[in-house]
Amino acid sequence: MKRIFIASRGNPEQLAQLFRAELPDYEVLTEQPKPGDADVPYIVVGRPLPGVIRAVPGLKLVLSLNAGIEHLLASGEVPDHLPIVRLVDDGLALGMAEWVLAQALAWHRNLFLYAEQQARGEWTPQPEKLANERKVTVLGAGALGRPVAEHFVRFGFDTRVWARSHHEIEGATTYAGMDQLANAVRGSDILVNLLPLTNETADIVDLDVIGMLTDGAFFINGARGGHVVDADLLAALDGGKLSGAALDVFRIEPLPSDDPLWKHPKVRLSPHVAAPTHQHMAVKEMVSNIKRFERGEPIPHAVDRSLGY
Amino acid sequence: MKRIFIASRGNPEQLAQLFRAELPDYEVLTEQPKPGDADVPYIVVGRPLPGVIRAVPGLKLVLSLNAGIEHLLASGEVPDHLPIVRLVDDGLALGMAEWVLAQALAWHRNLFLYAEQQARGEWTPQPEKLANERKVTVLGAGALGRPVAEHFVRFGFDTRVWARSHHEIEGATTYAGMDQLANAVRGSDILVNLLPLTNETADIVDLDVIGMLTDGAFFINGARGGHVVDADLLAALDGGKLSGAALDVFRIEPLPSDDPLWKHPKVRLSPHVAAPTHQHMAVKEMVSNIKRFERGEPIPHAVDRSLGY
Repeated sequence: MKRIFIASRGNPEQLAQLFRAELPDYEVLTEQPKPGDADVPYIVVGRPLPGVIRAVPGLKLVLSLNAGIEHLLASGEVPDHLPIVRLVDDGLALGMAEWVLAQALAWHRNLFLYAEQQARGEWTPQPEKLANERKVTVLGAGALGRPVAEHFVRFGFDTRVWARSHHEIEGATTYAGMDQLANAVRGSDILVNLLPLTNETADIVDLDVIGMLTDGAFFINGARGGHVVDADLLAALDGGKLSGAALDVFRIEPLPSDDPLWKHPKVRLSPHVAAPTHQHMAVKEMVSNIKRFERGEPIPHAVDRSLGY
Repeated sequence: MKRIFIASRGNPEQLAQLFRAELPDYEVLTEQPKPGDADVPYIVVGRPLPGVIRAVPGLKLVLSLNAGIEHLLASGEVPDHLPIVRLVDDGLALGMAEWVLAQALAWHRNLFLYAEQQARGEWTPQPEKLANERKVTVLGAGALGRPVAEHFVRFGFDTRVWARSHHEIEGATTYAGMDQLANAVRGSDILVNLLPLTNETADIVDLDVIGMLTDGAFFINGARGGHVVDADLLAALDGGKLSGAALDVFRIEPLPSDDPLWKHPKVRLSPHVAAPTHQHMAVKEMVSNIKRFERGEPIPHAVDRSLGY
């Protein structure tokens, strides 16, 4: 009998039941298998405690519960020979698109201003722009960046997408590589970060990049806190270069209670919920990746360690 | 020389310049023409002062600056023989779709809750639903309702559309006529009103309709204040039947400063800006309607007085 170990630290039994329903011929464990036990070729992990992965006998494949796996690589907990698969299910991409568009449309249509006016009892229509008068730059063209860019295109925004390598996205202008970052960002009204966190992309949103945006621009971060130089972000908000920021991710999570972002009047923050994992869809995706692995087929979103994602 | 009178009370000269650029062979007036002057077959009006329309000699066509013209019909200022054309330009529909989706996505993804949590310094991820777990009902299937419904479908919401007459909208379930209103609304999580205001649709959003929604539903009004029984709306918000409402339109505008909607914690209000008129697009649409009229062709969005819109 094939075995899967659910090492998730949040409600493993619930995940295990979904796996059992999808894979009735497999044994699904929620207790740590020990060296000397029967082989357990598959592990499902979020942020595993030290030693958990190495203790599993006969492990062949690590299935991440997250789209971002930089913490797994950095932890050194996954032996080099073990393949890692990122979780990029449809629900994740759908959720991210909803969260990003909710923030972008609210800013575009002055809803943050109208909320302030409402608090003051003030009825003042603001000048409203058409979507095609707004430039949006999406950093990232992968499983999250592409559908987000496609929604921006459908709403009629002047949409640009930047990524490490070249992509084609209908209706958007695409840019590739560090050489073209400035061209992708310069003059944009809305900057959306959906990049993987790698050595190349850490701290990418700094004073240089923010400085190239239009005055009063809006920044949306749905990726990782490590992409952003927080001091630069705060300086840009306080100095007026940015009129606002919607942040779902932070260098330390939960965001420490003394962090100035909590009370900043121009910051809308949410507690890392932009692309929530919907367990039914996640399990279906992981099961289909296990089947692909067993048939020897390529697995989408298998991690390339040389790229870091 | 053909003449057009711009009777708009807000910046007629700016509109006149746009008309002159599009129609160099026409005389574009911003001063009231009097009986006995040369004929002025076209008038452009928002909410005209009494007597303005009847004083224009040789008038043949009334071009409204608004999509909703119930105030023009109710005012008795437009003689029965004069055709009225509603302004339904692309900008109007685009703007409405942005505003409605901004509100709907923000509620769907708990952004109003997260704003309250941020104010308290609280980091608590809420249970997040997939769009296909939410039922949305759009009231109205016309120039505004259709594109809004199409965006809901693209985001994956379970989308229903109700209108006076039958419409087909790909991916949505459609309902027609008062007999089917209950079926269209029952069990919905989000109710969006984009109806024209007529004798049939006045007060349509009352305790009966709201009572059929799911508990804790969200109401979005981008059409007219006269569609809503305000006392019923407030009772539903206070009693918890509705968890919130996004309102852009009111029975009296600007909303009087003592209206309880201003300070209601569950109400997001904006000052009638959901579908702003973008003057360039509006003038292009009105010019194309003048040309159609002169060629004897049917004009889209000509008012049918028997229907009231």
